[in-house]
Amino acid sequence: MGKRSFNILDVTLRDGSHAVKHSFTEEQVRQVARGLDQAGVRYFEVSHGDGLGGSSLQYGLSAVDEMKLIEAAVDECEQAEVSVLLLPGIGVKEDLEDAVKAGAKMVRVATHVTEADVARQQIELGRNLGLKTIGFLMMAHMAPVDKLIEQAKLFESYGAEVVYVTDSAGALMPHEVKERVSALKDHLSCEVGFHGHNNLSLAMANTIAAVEAGAAYVDGSLRCLGAGSGNTQTEVMAAVFERLGYQTGIDLYKVMDVANDVVAKIMPRPQEITGSSLIMGYSGVYSSFLLHTHDAAKKFGVDERSILIELGKMQAVGGQEDLIYEVAADISKRNKALV
Amino acid sequence: MGKRSFNILDVTLRDGSHAVKHSFTEEQVRQVARGLDQAGVRYFEVSHGDGLGGSSLQYGLSAVDEMKLIEAAVDECEQAEVSVLLLPGIGVKEDLEDAVKAGAKMVRVATHVTEADVARQQIELGRNLGLKTIGFLMMAHMAPVDKLIEQAKLFESYGAEVVYVTDSAGALMPHEVKERVSALKDHLSCEVGFHGHNNLSLAMANTIAAVEAGAAYVDGSLRCLGAGSGNTQTEVMAAVFERLGYQTGIDLYKVMDVANDVVAKIMPRPQEITGSSLIMGYSGVYSSFLLHTHDAAKKFGVDERSILIELGKMQAVGGQEDLIYEVAADISKRNKALV
Repeated sequence: MGKRSFNILDVTLRDGSHAVKHSFTEEQVRQVARGLDQAGVRYFEVSHGDGLGGSSLQYGLSAVDEMKLIEAAVDECEQAEVSVLLLPGIGVKEDLEDAVKAGAKMVRVATHVTEADVARQQIELGRNLGLKTIGFLMMAHMAPVDKLIEQAKLFESYGAEVVYVTDSAGALMPHEVKERVSALKDHLSCEVGFHGHNNLSLAMANTIAAVEAGAAYVDGSLRCLGAGSGNTQTEVMAAVFERLGYQTGIDLYKVMDVANDVVAKIMPRPQEITGSSLIMGYSGVYSSFLLHTHDAAKKFGVDERSILIELGKMQAVGGQEDLIYEVAADISKRNKALV
Repeated sequence: MGKRSFNILDVTLRDGSHAVKHSFTEEQVRQVARGLDQAGVRYFEVSHGDGLGGSSLQYGLSAVDEMKLIEAAVDECEQAEVSVLLLPGIGVKEDLEDAVKAGAKMVRVATHVTEADVARQQIELGRNLGLKTIGFLMMAHMAPVDKLIEQAKLFESYGAEVVYVTDSAGALMPHEVKERVSALKDHLSCEVGFHGHNNLSLAMANTIAAVEAGAAYVDGSLRCLGAGSGNTQTEVMAAVFERLGYQTGIDLYKVMDVANDVVAKIMPRPQEITGSSLIMGYSGVYSSFLLHTHDAAKKFGVDERSILIELGKMQAVGGQEDLIYEVAADISKRNKALV
């Protein structure tokens, strides 16, 4: 008897946008979209790395208007459907309406794990536009399980058809993913998804844990192309889940071909677990902290890893960048006291 | 209460030898050895990638005599002990005696998973030379669990103090690692080890499974430097096991420093999961098959992945390279019959 089936959603053309500094061209998007479609990947995402409307000085300018990229991707699809990412506060109503005109069929509305309440309008808008509408709880490691359930229920109450546990920092351990996905399965009627990052070399293990716990959607990226050390590797997932006895509906050779013949050639560098991505996963902090931390470490003569780990313990969130300098100063004082 | 402790054995300077085409210099070895020693890594291995005596036209010539490299590594160690790898048929008695003179304190005698019986003399020699002596069962996915137990018992009967489950092709799933390590724990009195490869992005998950099942030794490599898609990443292991509540005795910052400041600069290219390494893990074949398969695929106009997967199903072993062309011819015939 075959095991339960689930969907692999590829994020190469969205999370991978970070890794190429939002430089995707229309031709690159067409090639990747065509490859994914022909390989049998049913859903894939196309947006600026920070979601619709992300193209800006703050988040990085896109080389090509994302609506053109969405249109091109949709144009290549015979079966696959294109998803877009929307972060309330970055993307607006008109962006989503434009994405629908460009042919998008799914929206994932993303908030910090404790801030689902800012997403009511966007979830309702997605439903009203006839999209498959998904809630995406980012930095999921920063909330205890009870809080995660509460926030997922909010998303469900607004109309989300799937709620994702999103391990943005690649900080979760497999047993923690299992616990979180199982808890959402137990407490929600809608479906559950998982999005992993490989900062601790556990993206694949976490994705398996999610599927075993009942996730209906799991994200992957060709050649891991994504923020930090990248995502769960889509083409490897196809092989691993086949070995584990699941039906993915994906043609292994074809998905390997688009990974190795197309995406590998687009990548500015391979995805590795370097010093900063490892510390991000270990400390569970935002990638946006890295730059300021580097400066603060220099200024106060302390190891930047100690700053990040301290920020992780404090559960600092985006917007609290001032804290970085305070923490650096404290560590410097403590170090001097030890001498 | 702290969890059971275990040993991380670093193989950067042995498995990584494959990745740098056996080009390690004495200075590189000194830097890596010093970094590992100062980070608190208790054991690490220095040898040609194919073990002592591997330097040859067939296996690749070493740039520097491995005895010089072992000596240099030992010279840098204040606490760590240096291991060497010995494959019966490649390395000989004199090689091991020379390694002992150079300061090696541990030997791992490696055979195919069904051929432990060729290693009696080498295990006995290791014990007689006063070395910590380990049996290393390679391509462990190719034997059913009963066979693995039988072979491990042979190693134990010869005097091995540890027997390793060695996932040479990166083909095992975490539940398979758990089953194998647990079986050896149940049936042997000696200790059990695990050596993983990342071909299916599961090296870290498999290493956790091994430790949870009672492995006392697990291998890692800095920045994954090793054959195929490389090994479990040593510095990431230090972070992950700390997060899981284990005591590794390793200083996270220091092991990161040697990985990122030393090893990253030696690497000719980052370790990735490419087409060939993925198919190796998926099909479970020898890396030595890749070259011939490439030729056979061209000659018969078939997809080389199909040849490798067929060889995997047939459980072909090293030395059966003729089979590659037969398999290619068969696939070609079948393909033509389908047209």
